[in-house]
Amino acid sequence: MAKIWDKGFDANKLVEEFTVGNDRKLDLRLAKHDIIGSMAHIKMLVKIGLLDEDEEKTLQDELQNILAEVEKGNFRLDDDVEDIHSQIEAMLTERLGEIGKKIHSGRSRNDQVLVDIKLYLKEEIKQIKDEVLQLFNLLQSLSEQHKDSLLPGYTHAQIAMPSSFGLWFGAYAESLVDDMHSLAAAWRVADQNPLGSAAGYGSSFPLDREMTTKELGFGTMSYNVIAAQMGRGKTERVLAQGMANIASTLNKLAADNCMYLSGNYGFISYPKELTTGSSIMPHKKNPDVWELIRAYSNRLQSLPNEITMMTTNMTHGYHRDYQLLKEVLFPAIETLHSILGMSHFMLQHISVNNDILSDPKYNYLFTVEEVNNLVLQGIPFREAYQIVGKKVQEGTFTAEKKVNHTHEGSIGNLCTPEIRQKMSLASEIIK
Amino acid sequence: MAKIWDKGFDANKLVEEFTVGNDRKLDLRLAKHDIIGSMAHIKMLVKIGLLDEDEEKTLQDELQNILAEVEKGNFRLDDDVEDIHSQIEAMLTERLGEIGKKIHSGRSRNDQVLVDIKLYLKEEIKQIKDEVLQLFNLLQSLSEQHKDSLLPGYTHAQIAMPSSFGLWFGAYAESLVDDMHSLAAAWRVADQNPLGSAAGYGSSFPLDREMTTKELGFGTMSYNVIAAQMGRGKTERVLAQGMANIASTLNKLAADNCMYLSGNYGFISYPKELTTGSSIMPHKKNPDVWELIRAYSNRLQSLPNEITMMTTNMTHGYHRDYQLLKEVLFPAIETLHSILGMSHFMLQHISVNNDILSDPKYNYLFTVEEVNNLVLQGIPFREAYQIVGKKVQEGTFTAEKKVNHTHEGSIGNLCTPEIRQKMSLASEIIK
Amino acid sequence: MAKIWDKGFDANKLVEEFTVGNDRKLDLRLAKHDIIGSMAHIKMLVKIGLLDEDEEKTLQDELQNILAEVEKGNFRLDDDVEDIHSQIEAMLTERLGEIGKKIHSGRSRNDQVLVDIKLYLKEEIKQIKDEVLQLFNLLQSLSEQHKDSLLPGYTHAQIAMPSSFGLWFGAYAESLVDDMHSLAAAWRVADQNPLGSAAGYGSSFPLDREMTTKELGFGTMSYNVIAAQMGRGKTERVLAQGMANIASTLNKLAADNCMYLSGNYGFISYPKELTTGSSIMPHKKNPDVWELIRAYSNRLQSLPNEITMMTTNMTHGYHRDYQLLKEVLFPAIETLHSILGMSHFMLQHISVNNDILSDPKYNYLFTVEEVNNLVLQGIPFREAYQIVGKKVQEGTFTAEKKVNHTHEGSIGNLCTPEIRQKMSLASEIIK
Amino acid sequence: MAKIWDKGFDANKLVEEFTVGNDRKLDLRLAKHDIIGSMAHIKMLVKIGLLDEDEEKTLQDELQNILAEVEKGNFRLDDDVEDIHSQIEAMLTERLGEIGKKIHSGRSRNDQVLVDIKLYLKEEIKQIKDEVLQLFNLLQSLSEQHKDSLLPGYTHAQIAMPSSFGLWFGAYAESLVDDMHSLAAAWRVADQNPLGSAAGYGSSFPLDREMTTKELGFGTMSYNVIAAQMGRGKTERVLAQGMANIASTLNKLAADNCMYLSGNYGFISYPKELTTGSSIMPHKKNPDVWELIRAYSNRLQSLPNEITMMTTNMTHGYHRDYQLLKEVLFPAIETLHSILGMSHFMLQHISVNNDILSDPKYNYLFTVEEVNNLVLQGIPFREAYQIVGKKVQEGTFTAEKKVNHTHEGSIGNLCTPEIRQKMSLASEIIK
Repeated sequence: MAKIWDKGFDANKLVEEFTVGNDRKLDLRLAKHDIIGSMAHIKMLVKIGLLDEDEEKTLQDELQNILAEVEKGNFRLDDDVEDIHSQIEAMLTERLGEIGKKIHSGRSRNDQVLVDIKLYLKEEIKQIKDEVLQLFNLLQSLSEQHKDSLLPGYTHAQIAMPSSFGLWFGAYAESLVDDMHSLAAAWRVADQNPLGSAAGYGSSFPLDREMTTKELGFGTMSYNVIAAQMGRGKTERVLAQGMANIASTLNKLAADNCMYLSGNYGFISYPKELTTGSSIMPHKKNPDVWELIRAYSNRLQSLPNEITMMTTNMTHGYHRDYQLLKEVLFPAIETLHSILGMSHFMLQHISVNNDILSDPKYNYLFTVEEVNNLVLQGIPFREAYQIVGKKVQEGTFTAEKKVNHTHEGSIGNLCTPEIRQKMSLASEIIK
Repeated sequence: MAKIWDKGFDANKLVEEFTVGNDRKLDLRLAKHDIIGSMAHIKMLVKIGLLDEDEEKTLQDELQNILAEVEKGNFRLDDDVEDIHSQIEAMLTERLGEIGKKIHSGRSRNDQVLVDIKLYLKEEIKQIKDEVLQLFNLLQSLSEQHKDSLLPGYTHAQIAMPSSFGLWFGAYAESLVDDMHSLAAAWRVADQNPLGSAAGYGSSFPLDREMTTKELGFGTMSYNVIAAQMGRGKTERVLAQGMANIASTLNKLAADNCMYLSGNYGFISYPKELTTGSSIMPHKKNPDVWELIRAYSNRLQSLPNEITMMTTNMTHGYHRDYQLLKEVLFPAIETLHSILGMSHFMLQHISVNNDILSDPKYNYLFTVEEVNNLVLQGIPFREAYQIVGKKVQEGTFTAEKKVNHTHEGSIGNLCTPEIRQKMSLASEIIK
Repeated sequence: MAKIWDKGFDANKLVEEFTVGNDRKLDLRLAKHDIIGSMAHIKMLVKIGLLDEDEEKTLQDELQNILAEVEKGNFRLDDDVEDIHSQIEAMLTERLGEIGKKIHSGRSRNDQVLVDIKLYLKEEIKQIKDEVLQLFNLLQSLSEQHKDSLLPGYTHAQIAMPSSFGLWFGAYAESLVDDMHSLAAAWRVADQNPLGSAAGYGSSFPLDREMTTKELGFGTMSYNVIAAQMGRGKTERVLAQGMANIASTLNKLAADNCMYLSGNYGFISYPKELTTGSSIMPHKKNPDVWELIRAYSNRLQSLPNEITMMTTNMTHGYHRDYQLLKEVLFPAIETLHSILGMSHFMLQHISVNNDILSDPKYNYLFTVEEVNNLVLQGIPFREAYQIVGKKVQEGTFTAEKKVNHTHEGSIGNLCTPEIRQKMSLASEIIK
Repeated sequence: MAKIWDKGFDANKLVEEFTVGNDRKLDLRLAKHDIIGSMAHIKMLVKIGLLDEDEEKTLQDELQNILAEVEKGNFRLDDDVEDIHSQIEAMLTERLGEIGKKIHSGRSRNDQVLVDIKLYLKEEIKQIKDEVLQLFNLLQSLSEQHKDSLLPGYTHAQIAMPSSFGLWFGAYAESLVDDMHSLAAAWRVADQNPLGSAAGYGSSFPLDREMTTKELGFGTMSYNVIAAQMGRGKTERVLAQGMANIASTLNKLAADNCMYLSGNYGFISYPKELTTGSSIMPHKKNPDVWELIRAYSNRLQSLPNEITMMTTNMTHGYHRDYQLLKEVLFPAIETLHSILGMSHFMLQHISVNNDILSDPKYNYLFTVEEVNNLVLQGIPFREAYQIVGKKVQEGTFTAEKKVNHTHEGSIGNLCTPEIRQKMSLASEIIK
């Protein structure tokens, strides 16, 4: 009896395949969490008198066995089983008999799925946080390492003002702090125990939800049982937003890399193994990795919209539509891990061009600097502006191509520790 | 001299109209913040020796005058002025002469716009927070008031389990707590001082950014000047996500109201003034307000995607594209205020039907209850299930249509104070 | 030599895996089209003197052998080969020696991919058209079959006017005609030969593109070689829009089915094998299949946005980003086939309730009918309205629950042949 | 009596303002179409005996008067009137008495709105078509004018192959042909008469819909009355897709212009009035107009998604949500007119740099050309490739910086007339 809802007839094969979809594969990553959820539930059932301690011991031991199989990578879904919950129940029942079914008292498949997903997403959020921090650290160290290398800064894609590699790397580090705030919001939404909400309307069993909340390490509870059910869709969307925000930072980083690598800029380079080229076009260093990071980050940025489309205009209560959210979100999480990792990998191998500003097309970068210098020497702004403007028009403007910026966050004062402190505060919420 | 970038020729009228767009209108709401930003900047210029105290007094007094005009609603943009910054500069110069231009030292229009927007958005976030809390309070009080009124609960849009109005109202209250986490993330991103980032690459003036951060009441600073500029687009998007999340809750609330008001449900009603109808179809109570809340909330839910589309695949540094973000975000903020207000208004007038479950089509709602009751009396689940199943098949199943749910968050134990506590923690970040 | 761009060093394994992505799997469906494209290209190379006829015979015979392998399902990508084009070239070279490489004269991987995708998408569009027509035919026949079964019609989700199953089924048929127009637009965009555009800037070989256009059965050519390259992204997006439009029709059909199946409506039913239920809630017939069709159709409706996000703000010319479009579009095509098929399957088994209007809650459906009837008998509208309104208020309104609608497209005059004729005109463009 | 649905009480002012929204303003552009729709309806009512010819004359004369007021720009909505339909009815009744109300027989506000919108959108589609053709013609003429000016062609944003301004301008012309196919699909969907569908379920009056279809100049009819109602949302979305496709072409054109104008490219220039600059940074020519075209085109590209969000997961039949579609679509149409016009305006003033390739960084553009030339001289590809590769490595590679491309659509053979012929076929559907 592979299906929980089986009622004595074989569901049409076509319907079964269509409704199961990719669940059997996607559910594998929920196996561990499903078992942990069941263990906590069982412990609570003992406390409220619905299981005795012998039964508990039998069940917990067997769940521990199955968990060990999962951790060894030996766990599989049988061919006739539609999801992870059915598989684990089937294994318990096969090995322990009738008692295997007792773990369902006071629980429905709905809150079981909710718990599994919340536990799984919490684990993924922690991993994303770690990957973001790893990239953040690398960016900060590149920023310090290259703080003296000047770059042209652009506005409107036009050559505008002096910038530096120190600023450039450091900017992406600080931008990740903003993204961490969204990831923390996703953590807050995920970190609430839905167990006990049953099918979304609660249960007549005297469940102790406070106990399972603590057992499962949730920071708080989705109290209201309808609200717990409404967490389906919302949890996924808020996490997708957090992921999209990180992706937007990687997208811009990738766009910058593609520009800087272009023959019309030539600001950075990578070892030839990390680009693709052509032996008769030796200048050509195609930034395929960054182009694909840019494209994948766009897929991630469209994720919250896809989830919203699947959930909007729906009344409260469970709809089967929500099953597909796993299919949308889970592979996207893999994509985010992958592009965070690849961005880190690429940046580990970046070389910066230290001789960019010798090209005369960057001469006018320093006109504003020169005006400001005159002002600091006491010349009124309007006059200083006219002096520099006249030199420019006469073609006599020259610049030292040096900058002396001292304020917080400027070329000469990167505030690396202050930014690190911000990141520390933002990320410590996720634990 | 209407335009900051004017360089001695009249820009083609067509180009000017196209590029100014709706800015002259949208910028009005930034007037106050622009003045406050200038006041802080001036104070800092004195400290670093670029203005003397007499100049400061003259400028601050006049800015105070202009602020008073803004607050009285007398402030206008002259016809030949393209934006709020030019207008205020023109007023200062007209009234005070050359000194009026001194406020631009060490600042560019870019960081001026960034400051204005961040200050403005902080104000709006606070107002949104207040409106959400007002709706939250009403929902909690409706939840307590109607905690004994039972409803059918649906899964898959099928009549499934007993629910209650207490649960239903309370669920929306708790759901707003989740949304508050996203709004708080938007607050964190907005609450960072960008002043001093100039055109996105900093300044050779020895600006004291710590000082303006405190003066302007920012919680922290966007340190890195490129990161400050990258805040354009990111700030708007993160806020749009927070707004979209609130909108998604209102969307579901609206969808529920439309369903409950339908003749096929009849679970709630509103005074006739709040619905539209027809004298020959007396049953018809069109829920126009809720339908429009649903539609407006969908516009808001598509907002983050629109902002992302406008900013993706772009390199760092200012692009004029970002000017249009105001046109996208600012009216959406008005929409959110409006639908939060209308949702509150409608719910103040809701009547709930206390006799829903007497309809025989809801009889089977209680079969699961009955099975659970038998289990609680010691009958094994499988046996209890068969007993109830048999009654149902024989047509002898009857139910008392009462529930006795006691666990946290269930019909009989709404956990209103616990949910209030969660909201309190979530919302106190925004201050 | 597994990679076309190989230049004598092993690309870092990590980079290779990341950049190849899912291409090796996705490309399998392009194998046939890649071979057909090569065959046409070879024929043309002979004509312009770059291959002789002996070489042609050797190459065409071997390509025919490989095509036979593809058709038998025996074709595989070797482990060290990154895409379909490399695989086929490798097979030719291994089997025929140096001559195998000659098929690349005057062609680049870029236009090869473009041809493969256009040929493949044309094939899929034709299949989608056939599936839409199959569903259309079933809907038209259900419309005729149930033309006398009345239904309540809703506006604002409120019971409003008499409707019929004839109207309901027929509406979805006609709605598919609108969708066919978008699919035909996608066909027009796909049906243009890009071969000869090389890397997007043409070739110094005197290619005969007119000849390959005819050989490959394209209706016309993407003349301008940059335009041909810009077809990447555009072709995918226009097709995605056509698919999204079909999906939007299925989405509404699914939403209607979920509503009609609900216990609060009970307008239709399906054999129990096609719904899921519970033995103790015999009324519960969960419409899982329709819920999943609704959810999948939302994924499809978000597809054009995802493609747009991946391609916007990009300059012309090839970017590696476009490789990922296959990963987005190809599985979505499978999804569309699947939900068109499942919608057809479900509707083959639908039963309609012929006794809906006997429920007294539908009495007032006929008030407008009654007013109109009085008007047709010569009573002024205002008076007729008052007469009926008075009866309603006094509770004496009764209705025959029959309608006599005769105009085009109404309950009594479904215009099935006229709608069929529209579909015929709309769909014949795709051939 | 300002509201059609008025039933004897004053709707709460707040509700009224919220539900009317921006309709009073948006509806002004429907005035003409509303009157024309009424004229056709009246003529038909005479034919089926519901109006006599005297009544017809009186009504048609007065509608003609109101139409004249609309065309003179004198038409206004009274303060207490909620929409255009109520306003025109009120004017008729005020001027003609009771007979003014007779025009509503056999019609509801629903199909009246549908007709107005379809007529209005048809008019706009024709105007968009004309604007696209105007831009197309300019692009084709620029393509011919600059066909001998060479450019570097890029792949992966890397300098790759020779290209030309002839190709570049011509590519955008041909790309617009693809967009015309989508616009034609929108035309097909809009060009169907919904009049007679009443509230979406038809009418008991013996309406002659064939007659009104001809009178109103529709190509065909939305036969099925439910399908006609389902056209709401679908018509808007399909048009939005057509608009988004045109916008995507303008987006890429804008992105190219911003790149070509950058100091790192310098391929094109515009008169100083059309860019913004700075007197001390004389090199700076900010491409504000193109940046805003890019941003506006992104707003348009997100439009179909917004409409989909507002309409998905909804059952058939009218929902008030659809009223907001006007607010989303109508201003977007203005935006499209504006950016089509501005793109045309800018391109009229473009100057191209004819000396781009003299920069040595473009030398390697010609390596592939040189290999191909050797192949055409009979040297095997592999050998030719090695010869050129050797020269490149030894630094002895030189190129003539000329190309001799002859095939269809290449630098030397732009196929301008063939592309014009494709556009002619694509656009003639819209008439």
